[in-house]
Amino acid sequence: MEIVEVLLMLAVIFIAAKVMAYVFNRFGIPGLVGEILIGVIFACVIIGDQTIAQYLGLFKNEGGVRVYTEMFDVLDVLANIGVMFLLFAVGLETRVRDLLKVGKPAFLVALLGVIVPFVLGYVYVSAAYGGNMNQALFLGAAMVATSVGITARVIKDMKLTDAKESRIIIGAAVIDDVLGMIVLAIVKGMNDSSGSGGVDIGSIIKITVIAFAFVIIIMLLAYFVVPRIYEWRQKHVADRIAKDPNYKKNDFDMFVIAVMFCIFLGWFAESIGLAAIIGSFLAGMLFADYAEKWNLIPQTEAVCSFLVSFFFVYVGLQVNLDGVGTSLIIAVVVVVILALLGKYIGCSIGAKLGDKSLDMQSLNIIGIGMMPRGEVGIIIGTIGKSMGVLNDELFTVVVLMSVITTIIVPPILSIFYKKKYGGPGAELKRDTFSDMTD
Amino acid sequence: MEIVEVLLMLAVIFIAAKVMAYVFNRFGIPGLVGEILIGVIFACVIIGDQTIAQYLGLFKNEGGVRVYTEMFDVLDVLANIGVMFLLFAVGLETRVRDLLKVGKPAFLVALLGVIVPFVLGYVYVSAAYGGNMNQALFLGAAMVATSVGITARVIKDMKLTDAKESRIIIGAAVIDDVLGMIVLAIVKGMNDSSGSGGVDIGSIIKITVIAFAFVIIIMLLAYFVVPRIYEWRQKHVADRIAKDPNYKKNDFDMFVIAVMFCIFLGWFAESIGLAAIIGSFLAGMLFADYAEKWNLIPQTEAVCSFLVSFFFVYVGLQVNLDGVGTSLIIAVVVVVILALLGKYIGCSIGAKLGDKSLDMQSLNIIGIGMMPRGEVGIIIGTIGKSMGVLNDELFTVVVLMSVITTIIVPPILSIFYKKKYGGPGAELKRDTFSDMTD
Repeated sequence: MEIVEVLLMLAVIFIAAKVMAYVFNRFGIPGLVGEILIGVIFACVIIGDQTIAQYLGLFKNEGGVRVYTEMFDVLDVLANIGVMFLLFAVGLETRVRDLLKVGKPAFLVALLGVIVPFVLGYVYVSAAYGGNMNQALFLGAAMVATSVGITARVIKDMKLTDAKESRIIIGAAVIDDVLGMIVLAIVKGMNDSSGSGGVDIGSIIKITVIAFAFVIIIMLLAYFVVPRIYEWRQKHVADRIAKDPNYKKNDFDMFVIAVMFCIFLGWFAESIGLAAIIGSFLAGMLFADYAEKWNLIPQTEAVCSFLVSFFFVYVGLQVNLDGVGTSLIIAVVVVVILALLGKYIGCSIGAKLGDKSLDMQSLNIIGIGMMPRGEVGIIIGTIGKSMGVLNDELFTVVVLMSVITTIIVPPILSIFYKKKYGGPGAELKRDTFSDMTD
Repeated sequence: MEIVEVLLMLAVIFIAAKVMAYVFNRFGIPGLVGEILIGVIFACVIIGDQTIAQYLGLFKNEGGVRVYTEMFDVLDVLANIGVMFLLFAVGLETRVRDLLKVGKPAFLVALLGVIVPFVLGYVYVSAAYGGNMNQALFLGAAMVATSVGITARVIKDMKLTDAKESRIIIGAAVIDDVLGMIVLAIVKGMNDSSGSGGVDIGSIIKITVIAFAFVIIIMLLAYFVVPRIYEWRQKHVADRIAKDPNYKKNDFDMFVIAVMFCIFLGWFAESIGLAAIIGSFLAGMLFADYAEKWNLIPQTEAVCSFLVSFFFVYVGLQVNLDGVGTSLIIAVVVVVILALLGKYIGCSIGAKLGDKSLDMQSLNIIGIGMMPRGEVGIIIGTIGKSMGVLNDELFTVVVLMSVITTIIVPPILSIFYKKKYGGPGAELKRDTFSDMTD
């Protein structure tokens, strides 16, 4: 692909994705949905219907499949780096201090909200859908993670951050992210070890231990070592200024160090059999407590706002609508229902077990607030597809499940919040949802 | 290349480049020199001496050349996007208002500082070195552009921003950037049109007109249209807030729009026969007047601090030291002398013509301050190499010329400034030079 073709492709994808994300946001739908749609449309134009592509004159007389493949190769690099930065950004908001402070209800909400959807997804694929064990594991894993962003946005817009339910949801979603990464690690490890179809209990134990050890080591570093480094640096600079009032801090840029960890731990995670995004997520967690002091979040967001759109378009390019038929539609409907039900049942039971004083209205809010899957479900689907575990149909199911659970929650959640708290201050504005991608 | 290999490569390159840049900065040498050096070292380790690579176990038993080629393909995308953001950042600092306000001395310094080095470079390659016309044109073009960053840093560190010479240098460097882009456009266009060796005067006129028209249109847009858009947006938001005090600005992120222009104009420039970086530079210029109000600079810098290191390592990877011999050394020495002399003569004569009251000390400062070539010379060299015009030797000459002129200027410049302005306030700190890349 020549440079002028690559630039045209990047310009068209970037502009189309951002404009679509903006339009979707205006209608209260998270931007990532618009970006995925752009990918789906492009795939249709380029390989689904070559005539359109030729009519538009975009790719001259070249065969659509060649263009698609080459486009895919270039996007592959940007999308994979983009998704690492996206998970790094999620990690930056996952403070270890908050994780440890989270109460019993939030912990139980997260735990049951992970177990119930996973079991439902696993049972459906292996018993009813007719998939193999690895497919069942990946679909289960994709149903696990709650996307913090969507619900948090609703809560913030309604100015109900201090409501009891809100605090439980946010706390649970943070733990949920960590548990989701551990589930992904285990599922990926089981898949790697089950080449011959049989599952080796020893390998499962090994990868589980590795996953927990990795998370715990990073948490310990974040809790005990990073604060020391911060204090040492503060003291060092103060000493230098005391000696020389003109001293100019010319220290290593902390954002650069954080990015080093993001890439390095991404590689490390991948090389020990976990997924790269797990490493990047944990790199974010490592710096989360000092993210504000070191001004890491706006810089990470700048990089994300350039790269992450390419990831969602890349996801859309892989959604294959050629084989749309009853089988796909049924699978999507069932999986969406299970995904919603799984979180609702798991989280509301978890909440009740953790705090007996919660009434039905509160349990409804918590059960619904934990439903959106957003980007994490999609990412797990992409990993499953790139490993050859999820076929086109199951990948499409995962993407649509993530998209649908993400779209329908905000309006429903705001109704339930309004029912409980009411008042005009709790008015939900149509154009204020947004997500990490803008 | 598998994902785990790509991640390892990115992690190793990023960490090594940033650490080296930091070390070099500590010694008063711009970081980009350290990053290029990392590229040179990697090229030696991987293809120059396979044994070392195998000993380090980095690339298992694979052949070094295969790894180098694959590594190169991945880096290619990141480096090319990185350099567009780098020029976009330079453009963001090139305000049209400042360009128009610049005085006669600065304009003449820029103009003669472009013409004299270009002619010297052209004559040397075509008459003495024995290169063809296109090689002479590219070497001349690479000798044209002054790197604003290095000199500006020295001036800032010496707290002499308000000195007459400083104002002339900064003003001239800004015009210099624009002229440099026009020279690049013309040289590239002449090369494109001279397939059969003969130069078509019609094509030269055409590309010159296109280049000037592009620059002038962007300047007109920046001067007349962008301020209207800014005012319209301000008014729009004010109206909305007047109607609804709770109105939350949920407008399109201006950074996203600026990045759209950066990629789109990059493609546009490339597609009309200019270079992509010219489009990105002009995109930056388009937004320069409002860069602060729209908070574009810190966001662009965040993206640069991730991507730009890959560009300089990529440059270093292409520096081939295998054929080091007398011929290369002589060429480097001659070109460096011509590069220094060309700027010194052109700029000091330009300054004297523009302002008769300047004394010899001031002319020295201006002549020396305009010497560093920095990133722009290297970028032009990279374009010449990718087009097949510059061979390995001439590319290496361009890189070393840019690096050497950049390294030697700061200490000399500070001596001349001290001679004129003296005092302890003008003390130059060793560890405070830096450049765009950190």
